[in-house]
Amino acid sequence: MRLISAQEVAKHNKRNDCWVIIHGKVYDLTNFLPEHPGGEKVILKQAGEDATQAFDPIHPPDIIQKYLPPEVCLGEIDPTTSVKTSKVETEKDKRRNLAIERKPALGEMLNLYDFEAVASQVLTPEAWAYYSSGADDEISLRENTDAFHRIWIRPRVMRNVKNVDMSTKILGYHSSFPLYISATALGKLGHPEGEVVLTRAAFKQNIIQMLPTLASCSLDEMVNAKGKDQVLFFQLYVNSDRNVTKKIVQAAEGKGCKALFITVDAPQLGRREKDMRVKFVDEPPDVHDEHNVNRNQGAARAISSFIDPGLNWADLEWFRSITSVPIVLKGIQTAEDAVLAAKYGCEGIVLSNHGGRQLDFARSGIEILPEVVEALKKEGLLNKIEIYVDGGVRRGTDIFKAIALGAKAVGIGRPTLYAMSSYGQAGVERAIQLLKDEFEMIMRLAGVNKLEDIRPEMVDIKNLSDHILVPKNYLFSDVYNKLIPTKSKL
Amino acid sequence: MRLISAQEVAKHNKRNDCWVIIHGKVYDLTNFLPEHPGGEKVILKQAGEDATQAFDPIHPPDIIQKYLPPEVCLGEIDPTTSVKTSKVETEKDKRRNLAIERKPALGEMLNLYDFEAVASQVLTPEAWAYYSSGADDEISLRENTDAFHRIWIRPRVMRNVKNVDMSTKILGYHSSFPLYISATALGKLGHPEGEVVLTRAAFKQNIIQMLPTLASCSLDEMVNAKGKDQVLFFQLYVNSDRNVTKKIVQAAEGKGCKALFITVDAPQLGRREKDMRVKFVDEPPDVHDEHNVNRNQGAARAISSFIDPGLNWADLEWFRSITSVPIVLKGIQTAEDAVLAAKYGCEGIVLSNHGGRQLDFARSGIEILPEVVEALKKEGLLNKIEIYVDGGVRRGTDIFKAIALGAKAVGIGRPTLYAMSSYGQAGVERAIQLLKDEFEMIMRLAGVNKLEDIRPEMVDIKNLSDHILVPKNYLFSDVYNKLIPTKSKL
Amino acid sequence: MRLISAQEVAKHNKRNDCWVIIHGKVYDLTNFLPEHPGGEKVILKQAGEDATQAFDPIHPPDIIQKYLPPEVCLGEIDPTTSVKTSKVETEKDKRRNLAIERKPALGEMLNLYDFEAVASQVLTPEAWAYYSSGADDEISLRENTDAFHRIWIRPRVMRNVKNVDMSTKILGYHSSFPLYISATALGKLGHPEGEVVLTRAAFKQNIIQMLPTLASCSLDEMVNAKGKDQVLFFQLYVNSDRNVTKKIVQAAEGKGCKALFITVDAPQLGRREKDMRVKFVDEPPDVHDEHNVNRNQGAARAISSFIDPGLNWADLEWFRSITSVPIVLKGIQTAEDAVLAAKYGCEGIVLSNHGGRQLDFARSGIEILPEVVEALKKEGLLNKIEIYVDGGVRRGTDIFKAIALGAKAVGIGRPTLYAMSSYGQAGVERAIQLLKDEFEMIMRLAGVNKLEDIRPEMVDIKNLSDHILVPKNYLFSDVYNKLIPTKSKL
Amino acid sequence: MRLISAQEVAKHNKRNDCWVIIHGKVYDLTNFLPEHPGGEKVILKQAGEDATQAFDPIHPPDIIQKYLPPEVCLGEIDPTTSVKTSKVETEKDKRRNLAIERKPALGEMLNLYDFEAVASQVLTPEAWAYYSSGADDEISLRENTDAFHRIWIRPRVMRNVKNVDMSTKILGYHSSFPLYISATALGKLGHPEGEVVLTRAAFKQNIIQMLPTLASCSLDEMVNAKGKDQVLFFQLYVNSDRNVTKKIVQAAEGKGCKALFITVDAPQLGRREKDMRVKFVDEPPDVHDEHNVNRNQGAARAISSFIDPGLNWADLEWFRSITSVPIVLKGIQTAEDAVLAAKYGCEGIVLSNHGGRQLDFARSGIEILPEVVEALKKEGLLNKIEIYVDGGVRRGTDIFKAIALGAKAVGIGRPTLYAMSSYGQAGVERAIQLLKDEFEMIMRLAGVNKLEDIRPEMVDIKNLSDHILVPKNYLFSDVYNKLIPTKSKL
Repeated sequence: MRLISAQEVAKHNKRNDCWVIIHGKVYDLTNFLPEHPGGEKVILKQAGEDATQAFDPIHPPDIIQKYLPPEVCLGEIDPTTSVKTSKVETEKDKRRNLAIERKPALGEMLNLYDFEAVASQVLTPEAWAYYSSGADDEISLRENTDAFHRIWIRPRVMRNVKNVDMSTKILGYHSSFPLYISATALGKLGHPEGEVVLTRAAFKQNIIQMLPTLASCSLDEMVNAKGKDQVLFFQLYVNSDRNVTKKIVQAAEGKGCKALFITVDAPQLGRREKDMRVKFVDEPPDVHDEHNVNRNQGAARAISSFIDPGLNWADLEWFRSITSVPIVLKGIQTAEDAVLAAKYGCEGIVLSNHGGRQLDFARSGIEILPEVVEALKKEGLLNKIEIYVDGGVRRGTDIFKAIALGAKAVGIGRPTLYAMSSYGQAGVERAIQLLKDEFEMIMRLAGVNKLEDIRPEMVDIKNLSDHILVPKNYLFSDVYNKLIPTKSKL
Repeated sequence: MRLISAQEVAKHNKRNDCWVIIHGKVYDLTNFLPEHPGGEKVILKQAGEDATQAFDPIHPPDIIQKYLPPEVCLGEIDPTTSVKTSKVETEKDKRRNLAIERKPALGEMLNLYDFEAVASQVLTPEAWAYYSSGADDEISLRENTDAFHRIWIRPRVMRNVKNVDMSTKILGYHSSFPLYISATALGKLGHPEGEVVLTRAAFKQNIIQMLPTLASCSLDEMVNAKGKDQVLFFQLYVNSDRNVTKKIVQAAEGKGCKALFITVDAPQLGRREKDMRVKFVDEPPDVHDEHNVNRNQGAARAISSFIDPGLNWADLEWFRSITSVPIVLKGIQTAEDAVLAAKYGCEGIVLSNHGGRQLDFARSGIEILPEVVEALKKEGLLNKIEIYVDGGVRRGTDIFKAIALGAKAVGIGRPTLYAMSSYGQAGVERAIQLLKDEFEMIMRLAGVNKLEDIRPEMVDIKNLSDHILVPKNYLFSDVYNKLIPTKSKL
Repeated sequence: MRLISAQEVAKHNKRNDCWVIIHGKVYDLTNFLPEHPGGEKVILKQAGEDATQAFDPIHPPDIIQKYLPPEVCLGEIDPTTSVKTSKVETEKDKRRNLAIERKPALGEMLNLYDFEAVASQVLTPEAWAYYSSGADDEISLRENTDAFHRIWIRPRVMRNVKNVDMSTKILGYHSSFPLYISATALGKLGHPEGEVVLTRAAFKQNIIQMLPTLASCSLDEMVNAKGKDQVLFFQLYVNSDRNVTKKIVQAAEGKGCKALFITVDAPQLGRREKDMRVKFVDEPPDVHDEHNVNRNQGAARAISSFIDPGLNWADLEWFRSITSVPIVLKGIQTAEDAVLAAKYGCEGIVLSNHGGRQLDFARSGIEILPEVVEALKKEGLLNKIEIYVDGGVRRGTDIFKAIALGAKAVGIGRPTLYAMSSYGQAGVERAIQLLKDEFEMIMRLAGVNKLEDIRPEMVDIKNLSDHILVPKNYLFSDVYNKLIPTKSKL
Repeated sequence: MRLISAQEVAKHNKRNDCWVIIHGKVYDLTNFLPEHPGGEKVILKQAGEDATQAFDPIHPPDIIQKYLPPEVCLGEIDPTTSVKTSKVETEKDKRRNLAIERKPALGEMLNLYDFEAVASQVLTPEAWAYYSSGADDEISLRENTDAFHRIWIRPRVMRNVKNVDMSTKILGYHSSFPLYISATALGKLGHPEGEVVLTRAAFKQNIIQMLPTLASCSLDEMVNAKGKDQVLFFQLYVNSDRNVTKKIVQAAEGKGCKALFITVDAPQLGRREKDMRVKFVDEPPDVHDEHNVNRNQGAARAISSFIDPGLNWADLEWFRSITSVPIVLKGIQTAEDAVLAAKYGCEGIVLSNHGGRQLDFARSGIEILPEVVEALKKEGLLNKIEIYVDGGVRRGTDIFKAIALGAKAVGIGRPTLYAMSSYGQAGVERAIQLLKDEFEMIMRLAGVNKLEDIRPEMVDIKNLSDHILVPKNYLFSDVYNKLIPTKSKL
């Protein structure tokens, strides 16, 4: 391969002549600029320079080979010439480095919120914004936690609870615990190794991981990280180009993924304003540019432009034709669609509002669960389909509530990212262990020995569907001027 | 015209001899003082001086010619003599100027609250108080936003939403979006050009504007600002003098306004204490004047003394006799009055509590909507009349909720004023564009292709009419002394 | 009368030899000490000194002559000897004096909360504590305001409201407004002239005042202050000694009081901890005195020890035998007791929890109103008895709500004390005028011309009796340690 | 006994050679280390040193003789050699000492929250954490207080309440007041004398005390502290070793305890994170020790490892065979289990969630009460069993509410600990006296003369079982980043 000097690359730094260095290779991205899902601006910022650090957390390593023609690769950077610009450490960087240095011991992490608190300190602002943000006013984001708090427990006493078994089967596959790691994007924003860290921790804890389409790691990397007999599922964003979709699905099945979770709540990706705002900190849009408004819309939009808004029920037949693994619809939000999914023969559904990241004021998965169970029962379909719930699970009691109301298992996403970002694989293992410890205790305190004993009458859901105390409207309250009485000024 | 020196004018500065300069002309307002709707005090403050700056935001330019006899105009100011007093810049002015200077870029405005936040910084205290204030404890003001938050969305998935059409017809006129700009008073408080800025932005966004009776611009100015085929409606405060009312209505129709929105919720203008208090900052009433209490009541009262409290259902016949455009009643607040409006043959109603500026504890328009739809349906009148809602609309989800519950369109008022005050026409355009972007996304995420697909069953209104979590009583909480336990003082 | 020197008085400063000077007279209170309703400690603090300043706000001037034997008066103080100790001005005094000096102009008072805010600054801590405190955790105190906020208004539009009449009759007596000044104790704590200030303001505003048993002024003083044809009612705490009670009732009737309001919610006076605590500021109990606990219980207990806990329904016959004016029971709190009152022939009842000062968690008068109206209607007694409501009335909307639900009038107590304490008679007049202005406006905005037009269907009471959002438990929240996640210490 | 020098003891300071000094005796605990319920770490911290100060608050004095073989005692410390290391006073210690020095006078304590506030200042952080903490997010802990606030009172008036009798019988034993002191562990953390302080105060106030299994005092000490005819009950944690259990029960009965309260809500002890975290302050776990996670779990876990998770209904027959006193189940949380308890012939049940220390989201005892009463009534069992309630009782109104809903008496735990920790026996007496004073007043204000008069219709429980306003999720809100609008930075 041709060796190219850093000085040579540096000359190609314009919109109509744009080279970048990624992992030691030099690419001419001039023609690709207008097609880049993340917009051309983000590439132009790196034009003529080494873009590896910006590229890595957002893209799997094999993406260029997969999607771009080979001729974009012009050669390799001449290692003797490469010039690394020394970055200055800002006040914010210093604070973050101090937080990393003074990180509490892993043993001090007593619950999932502790991990989130540490993650908020040790992550870059961009990563924290991408992971933690929700749609619009983040009402649904917070509602996901609040909804669990409207369910109370009716524990039974005086039962022998020496032995407690919390293992289960999900789509027929054994799990030590009715919980799986749900798919989340851009793992390398939180940990240099990305999603494989979760894969390894899932193996250690004997639970199932759902691999994401938008992983920072390649499918191969994730599948290669798995342990003996470890079960993996695959989450799919349906690409408008159905050939691409077919290739992805068949690769996943071929690599041994045991189920296909098709995301159905994201025909367009939600607006996450925290994620969008973090862009403006380094690079405020031109104040005078009032007519040519900046369209930079955060990490979420950057990675999602390919998602097919045309996906519909009729497509299920085609999916059946290209894969033989069970199909689960992720993002069902009404009893009506749950019944349709069962009628279309789906093996499972995930009741979810996408972690509050898509449609604000979408109800939480746990709230939807009773209406779904009732509708399926009424149609005689309850035993045809497994129901999972995600969104807001942070405590063993949350899992207990979901199981009591008819869920087969719950998914968690952000908590594992936060644990991974703070303490790597050991962090993820401990986070799951804490949930297991809590859940085991709760089973004892509630007087049950196995999951089947956790019955609907053990939870009080009188107010579950009451939307009276709604998460606070922070934007409104920030701009509202409070009334104050007139008094003497002292 | 006679030239008069500034020195000459300055001598006439008393209640029984009161001249002022407005736009270079000298007026003798001595006899008009007791009739001035805003009270004589506000004129006397300017007696013998140039009152243009105080006059402009409150009055359309043609008001003196229209309502006062020609002899009040004594002549023109001799331009060689005019003395401008140099105003000192206060700390508050400095802060405001700094806020203007450091205004975020328009591209950083991601939602309507951002515009409001900037407007609160760049507006004069008087303008901010007039625009943002509500009646009494501002319970209804805040309830307008809160009520939307008690409605949750039941989105459908797996529907082809590649194409989404959000256009509609309002009273038969095309609109790109089920939203119109509602009438608001005193636009020049926020922008030197006043309401015409909104007219131009409405044209760009292809939506309808409702012109206000109490505009700072004259009707001619607003109508002249309109684009090709642009549709305008006209909002009417009914004047006690029905000849004046007739003149106004016929002028509006003559200039091409396509509908008459008669305000029915303001037989007397509400008390807005923030607006009233702002007066006392510059000019505290005499502390010893306990029996002759200051009656200065803010901008709202100043501009409204002419409104006819005698307006009633029987007047509708007369309105039909003087105009042929559709008649819409703005400010309906019960099912009973909605049914009456339909029976009286009105073409539309606006469910509204006047932005929380009139009767505190009036319910929000969105809360009233279901009871109105049900009553009209019961009477077989639902297809006879269009229903609009205003008050508290800030997000695309709010519009979705109103449409789902049966509204034809929603109106926004303050948000366009805030956008205009912060960034002029481009601001207003962006504000509307943001709502369009949000709404289009929500239609996709909810699985609908056109407005008719947005059905009542897509929203959960179980708690819409629950008044349990009421907006905070700030005056009470400010004067209440919290209890604290006795402990050691350290 | 014998002249006694200050030096002589100063020698009698012990429990077994206790003289005090009041209004220039010297009294030997040694034998009265154990019987003093306020406890002997408070007298002993003044032993040998001039007690006038401490005596005045708590006692009517004629109380000693009325209740003590003439021989306790030993003579007059020799004016040439009297020694006034110069009091040092504390930081707190300075602050209070500054607040008085910088008091806003009366014209700046825009609502009743403004008066309360000023009163909290200009009153002595003791007076503020006595006036503002409530029972226990002050839940009922705050609930009184909150309950009104759970009622929303359904205003009607398009009605001719040029003319609005808000006059009414209470027990057959004309009032310009459906509001009376309720009885409150110790007026001189707030104003040197005491309750007569309220009497004069009530005359000016043409409303009725209810005179308190525990006034600082004597009955004669209050009655003498009344204007031509002014109507006064009399509030009665029933004394255990029925001869005393009879004397009081017949004096009130004799002086022209037109109705007897018997307080029935205070067989024992409530615990008001703010009032009790204020004692400890100047005079903390001995820290080592753990077994002989200080029983000083604030102003409330001091003035109430005579109230008869034996008062019961059978006593009504006796009251009828000693007076011919209408009898109203003040403090009814259930439908059951309202029905009993009507059956016993009472002319009226006041639904009240005594301003939240007696039983904490007693419901507010406004909440009780619908259940009372319904029960009386069911028994066919609704037209036999007038119903009044007090507690928490601060706005014209509150009055509107009470009238709509069936009240004949509402009472206010603290607001007039606050207005009196801040601005004297002019303040009280303005406070009432503000309520009248608000109420008149609300009648217009609600589309009514007279009180009879204010109908139950004009208010929405769906959640009135919901106790879900309860006033905050401040004592609890002050001692509760919030949970915080573990993170890096920076 | 052999005398051993401090220098000699000091050498045995390792895991495989571990001596400690307790009350002047030297013990070799090397073999006992792995069996210590509190974990070996806490002993190793004292290895080679005098452990008395750490031992005392956690263990009754006779525990070593009872449970360890005699040979662990090696001899006595040679008093001439003992070396006391002078402890340095930290900032925290200084603050605590200052708080103790400046403690308010006992007479200033006006309610139970005052005692709690003082206790939070004068207790060691470890004691405060152990006493005040609750399970998980402490939702149930706070709910216990909140639930009482959702009950409102319907007082009756015009009843002769001169005489009020608040005495009752509990399991046939006289009590001056429907309240008992419930069992709580580790009294010496709060007061050097421990639980006997409570015993003495209970005697003075003529109420019943329930002695705890996990007392710091021995059973003998507590029983010896009792006064003439004083009634004591005994609380039992069932030991896995039933011989131990039998010995304990028979000892309690033998010493005169009149009832056996078997704790049934603690098959495993709850997670109390405040209690767990306090450990890390002095001794943070090794930051690098990510795989060998610190298992130190606070005082709660340390003392509870022996509790039998196998306890079940069938065991009741065995309990009947070993004791003749009434059996009460403490920790019933559903109507179902209440009915079972009655059917199994238990004499009483305590509705309780263990002070919110066990299962978070368990409902409060007071909420469960109506469902239990209804179920027992339906089964005809209501008169077969007495019902008690504990959790959150802080005011006389709370007791009134419980009695009205059918409780025979209420228990309090933490409040007596706080009173004891702050002011010793006098504090406990005053705390109970304050409750009595409040309750007596409430009986008067509610119009009742004896406990039987307190009827269900005197309380309004419409919203008692509504879980809409749930205690705040502090961990969540601490890590959640609030949204703020973009504005000019000033």
